[in-house]
Amino acid sequence: MNDNLKQQLIAWRRDFHRHPEQGFLEMRTASRIAAELHQLGYALRLGREVMREDAIMGKPDAATTAAHAEWALANGAQPEFFAHFKDGFTAVVAELDTGKSGPTTAFRVDMDALPILESSEAAHRPQQLGFRSIKEGSMHACAHDGHSAMGLALAHLIMQNKDRLCGKLRLIFQPAEEGVRGAKSMVEAGVVDDADYFIAVHLGTGVAHRHFVAASSGFLATSKLDVQFKGVAAHAGAAPQEGKNALLAAATAALNLHAISRHSAGASRINVGELHAGNGRNIIANHASLKIETRGADAEVNDYVEAQARRIIAAAADMYALEYDIRLVGSSIHCQPSPALAKRLAALATQSPHFSHVIEEESSSLGSEDAAYFVQRVQDRGGEASYCIVGTELAAGHHHERFDIHEDSLIAGVDILFRAACDINALKYSTLTSK
Amino acid sequence: MNDNLKQQLIAWRRDFHRHPEQGFLEMRTASRIAAELHQLGYALRLGREVMREDAIMGKPDAATTAAHAEWALANGAQPEFFAHFKDGFTAVVAELDTGKSGPTTAFRVDMDALPILESSEAAHRPQQLGFRSIKEGSMHACAHDGHSAMGLALAHLIMQNKDRLCGKLRLIFQPAEEGVRGAKSMVEAGVVDDADYFIAVHLGTGVAHRHFVAASSGFLATSKLDVQFKGVAAHAGAAPQEGKNALLAAATAALNLHAISRHSAGASRINVGELHAGNGRNIIANHASLKIETRGADAEVNDYVEAQARRIIAAAADMYALEYDIRLVGSSIHCQPSPALAKRLAALATQSPHFSHVIEEESSSLGSEDAAYFVQRVQDRGGEASYCIVGTELAAGHHHERFDIHEDSLIAGVDILFRAACDINALKYSTLTSK
Amino acid sequence: MNDNLKQQLIAWRRDFHRHPEQGFLEMRTASRIAAELHQLGYALRLGREVMREDAIMGKPDAATTAAHAEWALANGAQPEFFAHFKDGFTAVVAELDTGKSGPTTAFRVDMDALPILESSEAAHRPQQLGFRSIKEGSMHACAHDGHSAMGLALAHLIMQNKDRLCGKLRLIFQPAEEGVRGAKSMVEAGVVDDADYFIAVHLGTGVAHRHFVAASSGFLATSKLDVQFKGVAAHAGAAPQEGKNALLAAATAALNLHAISRHSAGASRINVGELHAGNGRNIIANHASLKIETRGADAEVNDYVEAQARRIIAAAADMYALEYDIRLVGSSIHCQPSPALAKRLAALATQSPHFSHVIEEESSSLGSEDAAYFVQRVQDRGGEASYCIVGTELAAGHHHERFDIHEDSLIAGVDILFRAACDINALKYSTLTSK
Amino acid sequence: MNDNLKQQLIAWRRDFHRHPEQGFLEMRTASRIAAELHQLGYALRLGREVMREDAIMGKPDAATTAAHAEWALANGAQPEFFAHFKDGFTAVVAELDTGKSGPTTAFRVDMDALPILESSEAAHRPQQLGFRSIKEGSMHACAHDGHSAMGLALAHLIMQNKDRLCGKLRLIFQPAEEGVRGAKSMVEAGVVDDADYFIAVHLGTGVAHRHFVAASSGFLATSKLDVQFKGVAAHAGAAPQEGKNALLAAATAALNLHAISRHSAGASRINVGELHAGNGRNIIANHASLKIETRGADAEVNDYVEAQARRIIAAAADMYALEYDIRLVGSSIHCQPSPALAKRLAALATQSPHFSHVIEEESSSLGSEDAAYFVQRVQDRGGEASYCIVGTELAAGHHHERFDIHEDSLIAGVDILFRAACDINALKYSTLTSK
Repeated sequence: MNDNLKQQLIAWRRDFHRHPEQGFLEMRTASRIAAELHQLGYALRLGREVMREDAIMGKPDAATTAAHAEWALANGAQPEFFAHFKDGFTAVVAELDTGKSGPTTAFRVDMDALPILESSEAAHRPQQLGFRSIKEGSMHACAHDGHSAMGLALAHLIMQNKDRLCGKLRLIFQPAEEGVRGAKSMVEAGVVDDADYFIAVHLGTGVAHRHFVAASSGFLATSKLDVQFKGVAAHAGAAPQEGKNALLAAATAALNLHAISRHSAGASRINVGELHAGNGRNIIANHASLKIETRGADAEVNDYVEAQARRIIAAAADMYALEYDIRLVGSSIHCQPSPALAKRLAALATQSPHFSHVIEEESSSLGSEDAAYFVQRVQDRGGEASYCIVGTELAAGHHHERFDIHEDSLIAGVDILFRAACDINALKYSTLTSK
Repeated sequence: MNDNLKQQLIAWRRDFHRHPEQGFLEMRTASRIAAELHQLGYALRLGREVMREDAIMGKPDAATTAAHAEWALANGAQPEFFAHFKDGFTAVVAELDTGKSGPTTAFRVDMDALPILESSEAAHRPQQLGFRSIKEGSMHACAHDGHSAMGLALAHLIMQNKDRLCGKLRLIFQPAEEGVRGAKSMVEAGVVDDADYFIAVHLGTGVAHRHFVAASSGFLATSKLDVQFKGVAAHAGAAPQEGKNALLAAATAALNLHAISRHSAGASRINVGELHAGNGRNIIANHASLKIETRGADAEVNDYVEAQARRIIAAAADMYALEYDIRLVGSSIHCQPSPALAKRLAALATQSPHFSHVIEEESSSLGSEDAAYFVQRVQDRGGEASYCIVGTELAAGHHHERFDIHEDSLIAGVDILFRAACDINALKYSTLTSK
Repeated sequence: MNDNLKQQLIAWRRDFHRHPEQGFLEMRTASRIAAELHQLGYALRLGREVMREDAIMGKPDAATTAAHAEWALANGAQPEFFAHFKDGFTAVVAELDTGKSGPTTAFRVDMDALPILESSEAAHRPQQLGFRSIKEGSMHACAHDGHSAMGLALAHLIMQNKDRLCGKLRLIFQPAEEGVRGAKSMVEAGVVDDADYFIAVHLGTGVAHRHFVAASSGFLATSKLDVQFKGVAAHAGAAPQEGKNALLAAATAALNLHAISRHSAGASRINVGELHAGNGRNIIANHASLKIETRGADAEVNDYVEAQARRIIAAAADMYALEYDIRLVGSSIHCQPSPALAKRLAALATQSPHFSHVIEEESSSLGSEDAAYFVQRVQDRGGEASYCIVGTELAAGHHHERFDIHEDSLIAGVDILFRAACDINALKYSTLTSK
Repeated sequence: MNDNLKQQLIAWRRDFHRHPEQGFLEMRTASRIAAELHQLGYALRLGREVMREDAIMGKPDAATTAAHAEWALANGAQPEFFAHFKDGFTAVVAELDTGKSGPTTAFRVDMDALPILESSEAAHRPQQLGFRSIKEGSMHACAHDGHSAMGLALAHLIMQNKDRLCGKLRLIFQPAEEGVRGAKSMVEAGVVDDADYFIAVHLGTGVAHRHFVAASSGFLATSKLDVQFKGVAAHAGAAPQEGKNALLAAATAALNLHAISRHSAGASRINVGELHAGNGRNIIANHASLKIETRGADAEVNDYVEAQARRIIAAAADMYALEYDIRLVGSSIHCQPSPALAKRLAALATQSPHFSHVIEEESSSLGSEDAAYFVQRVQDRGGEASYCIVGTELAAGHHHERFDIHEDSLIAGVDILFRAACDINALKYSTLTSK
């Protein structure tokens, strides 16, 4: 990677950081990525072309989407590609078909930001260097800005070396990884159905700077549910019996949800993370909303917890004669990286000057990732897939208002991905360079 | 009342006290009452003749009934009437038709005992005088022994004076007042449909000795519910997820039942008095049972609470995928004594040497009484009805293991009832005596 | 009342309606009232002079108060009196001392608005006639705008007729009746300690247009509690055991609060009207807040419910090892209007051409009113007090976004209050007029 | 093993099966075992000598113990040893000190039965062959009858071969394994403090007939808690506010106990297996009892769950102003068998004609076993320990009323234990025989 590309890599990351866009709102980000890739010569599939609409989960409503579209246009979205993304279908898939027979290799990065108000303390480097979020309340606090930048740099390297590569190389820019909402729609649209190899990458997640994990396993299957209870308001002094109390239904649901049985087949989780009910001290609360997630070591366990949860919610509504609504607003599965690919990636990392320590497989069990849908689809169709971690030095933990990465890790990340591309799709590996 | 009848009155009370029989098991009591009334010349209707079977609530099961029948026969039940009662249909209605035109007046007493182990302390008078319960675990701790004895003494006085009376005089001996289980079946069988006057009587209930309350109002409408939850057991360590937890459903139901809203139309009550669940520390509980009662100032309020309760129970079962069963095992209603009859009874009591203080109407609000079904039916058909209290001195509160009455109050009770009979059904009142 | 004053009355009401100020923020309202009364010649006591600070409940925080002060100044507050009110002490007491011996009579009206977004439908009269609230989210939806206007008109009539009156006449403009927050601080400051008569007035509350209720009883004693639970956040997937779950504590509290026992001494109420907990689906919720109210037929019952509530809240916090805070943000008591004064007011209303139907006393049981503190204080010190209702025609119920009154009822209200002033404080009643 | 000993082995097992004694009541069993071992020449330590009293958990009360002592004496207890056991201290430790230097090896079996009514169906073999339980409601449904019999047969073989053995051989007969109540008191009394090797054995537990598991791991750490809540009764109609409701506290505790958070360090369990509250439908329940167990993959996890449980119980009591009591009535820990000993036992089993399939280590995760206390103590002091499973054919699952074993497995069990004794303590292994 030459210095120019390195500078661009950093610049892209900071530009994305400064303009964070939450899930299914990555209009500015996606349009700039599309423009860049188009200019490089990639064949593009955009928006609805690579997202199955009925598999999208937790998409913001039309008003929010429209309002953001205005913001995006006013803040640097590329007009020529904007139409593909303006309704909140913000995925980008770019492909280089070398024309030579060889494997199809897909790389996936994600693009979305979080609903966090970024720190404005002087010691916070993005503040210091002028790339703090200009969109108050949105922040890249999970490194997806870096992932997207790495995807662009990788695209440059691949295109620079296209004559020495065979098969097809595909770059997937996924929306809405936060809340595990976006991957499934792309997988269902078939974007990796023909992939022989699949590699997703994440920065940080507890892995030290200059360390590399070739296969991160242990993601929990998960379902994210939004619940609404709708009752009847009444004056709590004058006619309490006329109310249908949504607050008590929500409280009953919360307690019984957390009391869902453990499962002997493996770890499970349940959390009611938010509960909001009522709008007046002296009114029987006529509505309540809950944000819930279930998790399980595998699909069986998560399905068990989710099924119990749905029954409990329905019964809590019945208990207070309420109407209710359960919406699945995110989900992911458990996956197991392919050992052969993990070994191969680990070997490549060992050769890289950017890593001082390489781990073949690690089960972090920290949470969930919807890259798992890609991994499983590729494996189901006979391919190999892995999810790898590029270590970095963090200013503060993921999802923290002072989160920041060490930007050298961006270079390390691009290096290992390009090494993988070369290793898998090389005509003649020895002649390739990533200088 | 002559001394002989007074002695008999006391003797009957002690005999009933010594042989307490719980609701729908009053076989010995009813058979002895029937024999006595038959001998006096009353026309009798017994058992099923005066009880509508589908309106009976909370009847013991066949095995319990059969076991008690054996005990009753072995302990003094009158064989000639026993067949009417042995299956647990233990009501007695006796009537004197004077053959002369005049009003129909019905008097109601109750016969059943409570599931209480009677005190065997030396200071407890029944123990001292040798009439403590011989049936361990059953006890007349609510004075129904006295009520039944009063009914027999009243029957004697009426029959002694039958030539001076007109119309019809009816004596109703009701089973299973405890738990408000027995009255409805008699009312539904029509035993007061043609009554012009109805008077029920209770001893004690907080009214002082030699005091008389002509009309006690304020009984709460009530429903008694027995609930069963049936789930699936599972080993709590090895496979907790295979269980369907009846204990948690019962706990959820209990909390939400007590959280049923107050009603602006008047007083309400809800109580889960008993909850039993599970049979092993390391087993997911597969069954649970609850004993519940609802109350309300009137039918509207009680119906509201009961309807909520039924919905909550059903939903708690659904929440844990259980089967459930709700049985109505008792119920009563609110009633309002007839003011004219109350005034008349109060006037009579003022003339009685047995009372030093007379109250026309008092709202005690202490609980529920299924005499209310009789009261309302008589009023609905144009008659007058009242529920009156004869004060007494209590050794300990109602339902206490050392409960005992002052037996002089029995005489006072018979006196006022007979005065009422005479006042209402006299051919010529001035010639009647109750000496 | 002459036509000019009638026009002013309507104009004041509409001005207040257009500029609604919530409890303890009535800076514009109070300053304009003070200016008007000052000009009329009343002796004024303002702000902290008539509010005991430690008896104030539920006062907005300093930032909110300061922000509103800016708004008030920019929207017509009278600068000469503003300093008394700008920190949120917004009470006004005006007095006419006639110099002649006679009773002290106090009239109380309230001034505060509600947190409701007023309807902007064309059919809504304030919208139509241009006096809809200019402060979005605040609205006079309980007629306090009318009460304040009536207070000013009454002040005019009294001053016009001062030569024919004796004793002292006092006008009390109370802040923060909504949430029953303001009265206690004025009573504790002694503003009615020397009053022989006290009259509070309310428009509407279900009483028909041209009807008058001389004494409204049945207000429930009440306490308003704000509760905060503070726990520890943790990632719900990675380390749920590190959290201290404030959401579950709040749910447990809510259920058990609603399960507080009924009280045999009279009606009780409990309501958790709002519950807000958590700030992320995948985070163990580290905070929760509840808005609670208790009520009782009298102080004993309300105190019972409040004591149970406080214990339940403390235990729910302990159950999850949380810190917690309970703040009393409002309270009122039960009161019983003085029968003699009620009779007197009813007689006066019968003579008024503005009323077609007069009720001496009515127990509405609709809710709570902190005028009860005034009533009880006056009675405790030997005076007579009543709370009366002037009927009106409502466009929609109290606290509704389309609430509106029939403005003729303002004139009726002023008329009856002035008749009362004359009746009580007249030198020679026959010579007084309210033309 | 000669045929005579085999017949005795079966006879012992059937005798124990016919006379089942629950935990800390094994008086007949222990006295007969002591008599047999004494006759063989073992040095005995009995009852309190090998049980530390303050480490005993869940011991029946004095009345139950005394009543059972009568039964035991009347049903074959050996009078000469009975005094050691009659107060419920029913452990037996027998030792052969060969006098020659060598390792100390301890074998542990358990003796107690379960509170289960044994099947009397004709197809149930113990019924058929006449050794069904004569103590209705108690049953050997977990093979401890077989374990005790195996212990006696092993004692015979060891004593027969004592000249060829070195070191010390110790036989531990433990009471009250059910409920994990008895082991800790023996370990705390030091009975394995000097052991170099420790082997415990169980029949069945899902392992097939003629299979052998040399080391069963995966037992969950556990705590068994009995909880009592004590409140105040009150009439639910007349004065509900006077009650302190133990039933609602228990319901609240049950729900929140089951809602205790999962732990990221490993499997956890919580179960409220029984809840009993109240004694009357119309009474506010004044007492409640719960039977609870917590479990965890290791001590950290179980300690976490138990600590939460204790806090929840205390807070639930406080919530209703109750007194409460928590008693630890059983506990065990997680253990990990020594790999070297497991390998050694597996090798020995491979040589045995009684096993067709040998597994070195298996993590069953089925539950908890207090042999773990022995295992850990021996390992903590430098020794090796294992818990092995001898497969058998079951008529029905453990704790089932038709549970029965294949008696050939008794022989297999004695064979492998004796092989271990010889392997560890042989002077010259080749000369030993167990034929």
